[in-house]
Amino acid sequence: SKKKDSSFSNRGKTLEDEINETNTYYLNQQIAIIHKKPVPVQIVKVEYPSRSAAVIREAYFRTPSTTDYNGVWNGYYIDFEAKETESKTSFPLKNVHLHQVNHMKEVTNQKGITFTIVKFTTLDRYFIVPFNVLHEAWQMMECGGRKSIPLSVFESKTIEIQPGYNPRIDYLTVIKKMIANEN
Amino acid sequence: SKKKDSSFSNRGKTLEDEINETNTYYLNQQIAIIHKKPVPVQIVKVEYPSRSAAVIREAYFRTPSTTDYNGVWNGYYIDFEAKETESKTSFPLKNVHLHQVNHMKEVTNQKGITFTIVKFTTLDRYFIVPFNVLHEAWQMMECGGRKSIPLSVFESKTIEIQPGYNPRIDYLTVIKKMIANEN
Ligand SMILES: [Mg+2]
Ligand SMILES: [Mg+2]
Repeated sequence: SKKKDSSFSNRGKTLEDEINETNTYYLNQQIAIIHKKPVPVQIVKVEYPSRSAAVIREAYFRTPSTTDYNGVWNGYYIDFEAKETESKTSFPLKNVHLHQVNHMKEVTNQKGITFTIVKFTTLDRYFIVPFNVLHEAWQMMECGGRKSIPLSVFESKTIEIQPGYNPRIDYLTVIKKMIANEN
Repeated sequence: SKKKDSSFSNRGKTLEDEINETNTYYLNQQIAIIHKKPVPVQIVKVEYPSRSAAVIREAYFRTPSTTDYNGVWNGYYIDFEAKETESKTSFPLKNVHLHQVNHMKEVTNQKGITFTIVKFTTLDRYFIVPFNVLHEAWQMMECGGRKSIPLSVFESKTIEIQPGYNPRIDYLTVIKKMIANEN
């Protein structure tokens, strides 16, 4: 079937690959302008060979201070993080960093739209997690509650998204509905 | 005088440093959430020494596909580029890349706010250049017109900004006025 072909061709792709493809589709169709931020590196040593490009010879990965993706759709500021888990039962909150939660809180205060796309890789299921759902789980954890979000919470409080061919992970259609429901 | 002290302490700072300071001020005051994008690098070789951090041993600078800065202020998507010139008479358009102009065009189409901050370093003067001014000059250049924007155009069609102590380059105040004038 078409469905099977599509999953087959996407086997081995990371969630990041799938989202990058989706963003390229949005960009080409002029639906939205959303890019992945480059990985932040601390550059220590650069060589400048004559007649060829500068080579970075010593650099270190830095902790990102924000989320993976941001951009603009129809006047809305869009900002999100992509996370994968191999677990079949829950999403471990250790996958999320405090500075990312703080960043999403700040974005929300500035009336931006922020969320997390979570892929359960073993189950091949994708969910759009509104920030308030993540934030609530985070706050409960900080008060001594559980350190993960159970799949049942995903099923009841987030929006499951069916992967397609192109766009692969059409998260903007979900976001449009969320905005429409709020207004 | 206060003015002189302030310029003295900022001597040697790049425009990027000044804007980063400004964004830190905005962030700390919760005025806006605007970050510099990391420099994109193509990572070729990474070493993983035992018991210490991964070291990037070969990497190359890639051409950025977008602008230097983006983020959100009060529900508005903000996206801009910072450029310096040593010229005293005009801003050479070779400082701007075609993909940056295209990106700004796309952002404008999606109702984002986009502009360029240009510093004439020798003159110690700063200007906020609305995208339409840059775009017009760019289009004229593509039709065989001049390859730079004269200082007189900055003085007549853009907004000069006086550097301050903190925030150093208060570009958001200018943007707020521009938005208010449009509505
Ligand atoms: Mg991620
Ligand atoms: Mg720049």
